[in-house]
Amino acid sequence: MEEVKGLVVSNHDLVYNALSFSTAALGIAFVYFLVSRNRIAPAYRNAITMSAMICGIAAYHYWRMFSNFSGGEWNEGYRYADWLLTVPLLVAELVVVSGVSKEVAKKVTPRLVIAALLMIATGYPGEVAAHGSSDRTLWGAISGAFMLYVLYELFAGEVGKTLKTQTGEIGKKLNNLRYLLVFTWGIYPIFYILGDSTSWLAEQIGLSPEEATTVIQVGYSASDVLAKAGYGLVIMSIALSRSESEGYRAA
Amino acid sequence: MEEVKGLVVSNHDLVYNALSFSTAALGIAFVYFLVSRNRIAPAYRNAITMSAMICGIAAYHYWRMFSNFSGGEWNEGYRYADWLLTVPLLVAELVVVSGVSKEVAKKVTPRLVIAALLMIATGYPGEVAAHGSSDRTLWGAISGAFMLYVLYELFAGEVGKTLKTQTGEIGKKLNNLRYLLVFTWGIYPIFYILGDSTSWLAEQIGLSPEEATTVIQVGYSASDVLAKAGYGLVIMSIALSRSESEGYRAA
Repeated sequence: MEEVKGLVVSNHDLVYNALSFSTAALGIAFVYFLVSRNRIAPAYRNAITMSAMICGIAAYHYWRMFSNFSGGEWNEGYRYADWLLTVPLLVAELVVVSGVSKEVAKKVTPRLVIAALLMIATGYPGEVAAHGSSDRTLWGAISGAFMLYVLYELFAGEVGKTLKTQTGEIGKKLNNLRYLLVFTWGIYPIFYILGDSTSWLAEQIGLSPEEATTVIQVGYSASDVLAKAGYGLVIMSIALSRSESEGYRAA
Repeated sequence: MEEVKGLVVSNHDLVYNALSFSTAALGIAFVYFLVSRNRIAPAYRNAITMSAMICGIAAYHYWRMFSNFSGGEWNEGYRYADWLLTVPLLVAELVVVSGVSKEVAKKVTPRLVIAALLMIATGYPGEVAAHGSSDRTLWGAISGAFMLYVLYELFAGEVGKTLKTQTGEIGKKLNNLRYLLVFTWGIYPIFYILGDSTSWLAEQIGLSPEEATTVIQVGYSASDVLAKAGYGLVIMSIALSRSESEGYRAA
């Protein structure tokens, strides 16, 4: 575990507040999805349970990161442990609400889950590599390649094709979900690059090492809230529409 | 994070007790709303879930503020992180029980939520600005303008007009809810002003800087309990009346 150093007070407070905010937002999203499960028809309920699990796992890790950070230390491992558990769930729940047949789901889900696992597992050595090192670039690129594969499946693969056939309100919401996914996932690599003050992008902006640390931590935190709690809300709204259109009524 | 200084023992204890009291009141309100959800017809149940979430988020932040304060530090960011999450939910749940049509709700809710977010986001730079500075006045005024817009919608806008058409017991309770909202929201700016001992109002009363700090912290804490737990109870009572009048009986 490294020590957090070189953060001036205002940057320190920003990271501190971002970690606490994410703990609260994700913790309450966990509770919300848990208690809202029975508003959803049984066929889609598991997607909401997955949202609850994702937010619960993330709230736990933000709690740990907050305690760690406010104790003056930092362990990037928490983020990657979190993502290793939550990112495969995020892609799996998208398949549940996408409307693909059971056969397609059974074929596509393991592929997507494995790609998501590899994306996180190969991102970690890059994240903890020395700033400016070729290791950071290399592992970042490998991790990015797995992300591109996942996005390819969701846009051009079988899931993508099925999504395109969905019409009406549900089709519109599924489309929003995909764009939310691309947007929230797409900003992680940007923060990964900006977090290294020696990177081309960070140098263009003129980030000092401590500013780069602040940007990466606040950026990852905001992305996590959007990609987990926000994403879960869109999934919930799709599942509610599907439940309604199938005549399901909560008791 | 600043150090808490200049509070004499009696004032320190008052703030300390207020933070603990609010943690307890809001924490238990969180549990109460969670377990009472199924007394309410499904159509209004989400409003009760929102009450639970609001109180849960606030209990978390009071817990953090208490730990922080009793450790000799203070971070005003907790209050604003709390409000950033809870205030949009407060206005959204009012729309749910107001009786407006789904179409009106879909149109009005995003407007109100954005105004509420801006009210909190612009209040924060004022809160942390130096006492007596023009920044404190300017940001306070901008934040207050967003509050006036929210109140305008709830009284004179479409939500307000619909509320006025509700009769009988439900109409009376909705009216109480509105007045509770105006009262509890209206006192925040007063504490904001009193918290700065150089303000005109604080000087009239003759508050010392430490008294001003005590007044703002105890005042915000009391307002939060009323505006979240108290407000939730009125929402619950309205939702119960609506459920009953629609023949809903909890299983």
